[in-house]
Amino acid sequence: MIPLPSAFTAKLAEQFGARLCTGEAVRAQHAGGGMHLPALPPQAVLMAETLDEIVTAVRACAEFGVPIIPFGVGTSLECHVGAPRGGLCIDLSGLKRVLRVSEADQDCTVEAGLTRVALNEHLRHTGLFFPVDPGADATLGGMASTRASGTTTLRYGGMRENVLGLTVVTPQGEVVRTARRARKSAAGYDLTHLFVGAEGTLGVIADVTLRLFPIPEAASAAVCAFESTDGAVNSVIEAVQLGLPLARAEYLDDAAIRVVNAAFHTDYPAADTLFLEFHGAPSEVSGQAERFGEIAAGNGGGAFRWALETEARSQLWRARHQAGLAAAASRPGARPWSTDVCVPISRLAECVTQTKADLADAPFPAVVLGHIGDGNFHCVLLIKADDPSEVEAAARFNDALVARAIAMDGTCTGEHGIGLGKRESLREELGAAVDLMAKVKRALDPAGIMNPEKILA
Amino acid sequence: MIPLPSAFTAKLAEQFGARLCTGEAVRAQHAGGGMHLPALPPQAVLMAETLDEIVTAVRACAEFGVPIIPFGVGTSLECHVGAPRGGLCIDLSGLKRVLRVSEADQDCTVEAGLTRVALNEHLRHTGLFFPVDPGADATLGGMASTRASGTTTLRYGGMRENVLGLTVVTPQGEVVRTARRARKSAAGYDLTHLFVGAEGTLGVIADVTLRLFPIPEAASAAVCAFESTDGAVNSVIEAVQLGLPLARAEYLDDAAIRVVNAAFHTDYPAADTLFLEFHGAPSEVSGQAERFGEIAAGNGGGAFRWALETEARSQLWRARHQAGLAAAASRPGARPWSTDVCVPISRLAECVTQTKADLADAPFPAVVLGHIGDGNFHCVLLIKADDPSEVEAAARFNDALVARAIAMDGTCTGEHGIGLGKRESLREELGAAVDLMAKVKRALDPAGIMNPEKILA
Repeated sequence: MIPLPSAFTAKLAEQFGARLCTGEAVRAQHAGGGMHLPALPPQAVLMAETLDEIVTAVRACAEFGVPIIPFGVGTSLECHVGAPRGGLCIDLSGLKRVLRVSEADQDCTVEAGLTRVALNEHLRHTGLFFPVDPGADATLGGMASTRASGTTTLRYGGMRENVLGLTVVTPQGEVVRTARRARKSAAGYDLTHLFVGAEGTLGVIADVTLRLFPIPEAASAAVCAFESTDGAVNSVIEAVQLGLPLARAEYLDDAAIRVVNAAFHTDYPAADTLFLEFHGAPSEVSGQAERFGEIAAGNGGGAFRWALETEARSQLWRARHQAGLAAAASRPGARPWSTDVCVPISRLAECVTQTKADLADAPFPAVVLGHIGDGNFHCVLLIKADDPSEVEAAARFNDALVARAIAMDGTCTGEHGIGLGKRESLREELGAAVDLMAKVKRALDPAGIMNPEKILA
Repeated sequence: MIPLPSAFTAKLAEQFGARLCTGEAVRAQHAGGGMHLPALPPQAVLMAETLDEIVTAVRACAEFGVPIIPFGVGTSLECHVGAPRGGLCIDLSGLKRVLRVSEADQDCTVEAGLTRVALNEHLRHTGLFFPVDPGADATLGGMASTRASGTTTLRYGGMRENVLGLTVVTPQGEVVRTARRARKSAAGYDLTHLFVGAEGTLGVIADVTLRLFPIPEAASAAVCAFESTDGAVNSVIEAVQLGLPLARAEYLDDAAIRVVNAAFHTDYPAADTLFLEFHGAPSEVSGQAERFGEIAAGNGGGAFRWALETEARSQLWRARHQAGLAAAASRPGARPWSTDVCVPISRLAECVTQTKADLADAPFPAVVLGHIGDGNFHCVLLIKADDPSEVEAAARFNDALVARAIAMDGTCTGEHGIGLGKRESLREELGAAVDLMAKVKRALDPAGIMNPEKILA
């Protein structure tokens, strides 16, 4: 790798002092990677704190042709933050101010490095909350960049639906606001949606304007075990068809339940299971739960276990959110490879069933976790990284999973993104549309310095 | 204007025969225009019937450098379909097949020329419906192209939220599918949203995959008059803050009510008025209506007039939808100039009040109609086109309206789009972001043949 130009480093060091880091430890912390992808450290890391500092850094990179890798807190899963060509990682976790909140408009503007938990902590006294919940306590800029979603998407939408506008620093160092604050607009191309999900390849997101929602008057959660995958999936399909506004409908397979039971000392039956949540006025919540109970009973569902109190609900969702980590811990020495696909919900039961059959034959353990109402599920593969036969089998499994999802008119990733890991899958999925993406990339970043090699090979 | 190349016309005439029209009457029907914008007829009109025919026509246009203007049924309001450089209008109203409907997935794919009313007629026996309702019976391709929304956006979203994917013919005549059919995806740039609202300047939309919704078990509508604009607006703000899922919340000013009363022989009090609709389970609908009634009473609202039966509701919404047309008919010899803006709802009462003060001083009559829960409202100005002082006053009013909306961090158009009419307003609203749009346009349409001069000057 070519060293960073000394004039470039000197220029940034003069302005930023110790916040320009070139030490190995810091670079290693910003290297991305994962079970199936190499860690790729940047050549330097800038701990940015303001929009102006991003502009200064981006202009210096543009001047010297240095790659730029925007970084939140590094929770992405397809090596979105690796630096295959070296360059400068701009760590945005220092940009964490809440710039404005409007209770009347139910929106807010926050800097890109604020995390979703910190935002909801800030909002606590307003009666509003930001619902998008991918599990990890990611930054809101990172969540926008990867088009994150998660457990509440069914009711509230993901980042695609809840980002109203962005301030972006272009690869040329210009500051652009993609939209004003009206709830809707027909004014020109939808630049907001162009940057949401662009994984930092078109510019650096500096702040995010988000929709907020009233905290529901009442919420209740429940766990229900099913005799079959079909039963769990079909219950959710029927509920959606009836217009039942489920706030969360999460699927865990028997292997995931075993892992949860071991990690959290719970005693859920080891079966295909739904974790559910209902939001609304108290009468609505109880009505919804009752109607869902009838649907579940008709599909081989057992009795509900209720979690009505806030603390009990938090425990339940902690178990769900940490099921992936708990799975990783369940096989000492193994590393998790977390992959996801999303299919039309009519094909979901079939897709999960075939996938579980593949996993039954695989030489490694795995759990399946799904945002079932969206048709989106994750497989967490637990791999001994030093066993080439396991690594190869995992790669074959992932390829087959992606091919199956695409054959069902689904997508190679519902919420993890493309990064470095799924670029071939993207071509498999969208064909010539990828050429349009490449045209857009070249138009906005002709020098190719913004998060190079991500999404587009 | 340069005549169409004779080789081009001969080529298309050979394939399409009488469906390639060059007569003056047909060209005039496809010329767009309006009170404030000239009619700009294309040089020829192709009545296309299939995707392959669109491809053939676009490739011929690309070969000969002929401008392409996609056309649905011509209900757009900012001369989106005018032909300032001549060229070929591709009339898509013959592409009106329903290609597929999935009840389990609650989605469908339809050709671009199908209208929304025809789609809902087709869906009648499925228990599903497509909710986006801009008033006019526009084509779904046209609605996607202009990012249409309308009266039900508050509850169901507009085209931005309800288009899952598109088949697009690029300016080079390639066929591209922007997304597969999964409910969500993190796979690459969001091309779907790039084409939704692009007003045909980046390609021709050939088919549209749409979200569908269960027809609500129960629906009720009501009309409520208020003592002030503030009272009407604040009632809706409070309801939204409480999480009350209003299906429709439409504002009509006193002038609009007078016009409605005259046209439909109704006797609503001539005051700031809300037309409301509630959807849900029967118990939810009555609960919502009751809670809204309390909110309205606290904001100077009068008694509700209910429309519970389907027919009564249809009459009510017909009156709302045709209020603009009724206004036009109320001043013989006048032409309507319909403009719209959208502001954060916290600024809406102030914006409407100032706008009505401007209208009180104007030398022409006008009505104000609003999708109030979105912060979006329309002014329909009734102008004698042969009176230059009225035309000038209307232009000044429109400029002031747009400037006011932008100063409130709103948008120059909530749902009508930019077309030829609001290109300067777009620059005023988004500044340097417009340069990014121009880069995208040049990247995807370097020859500049797709609906030239729209959105970008």
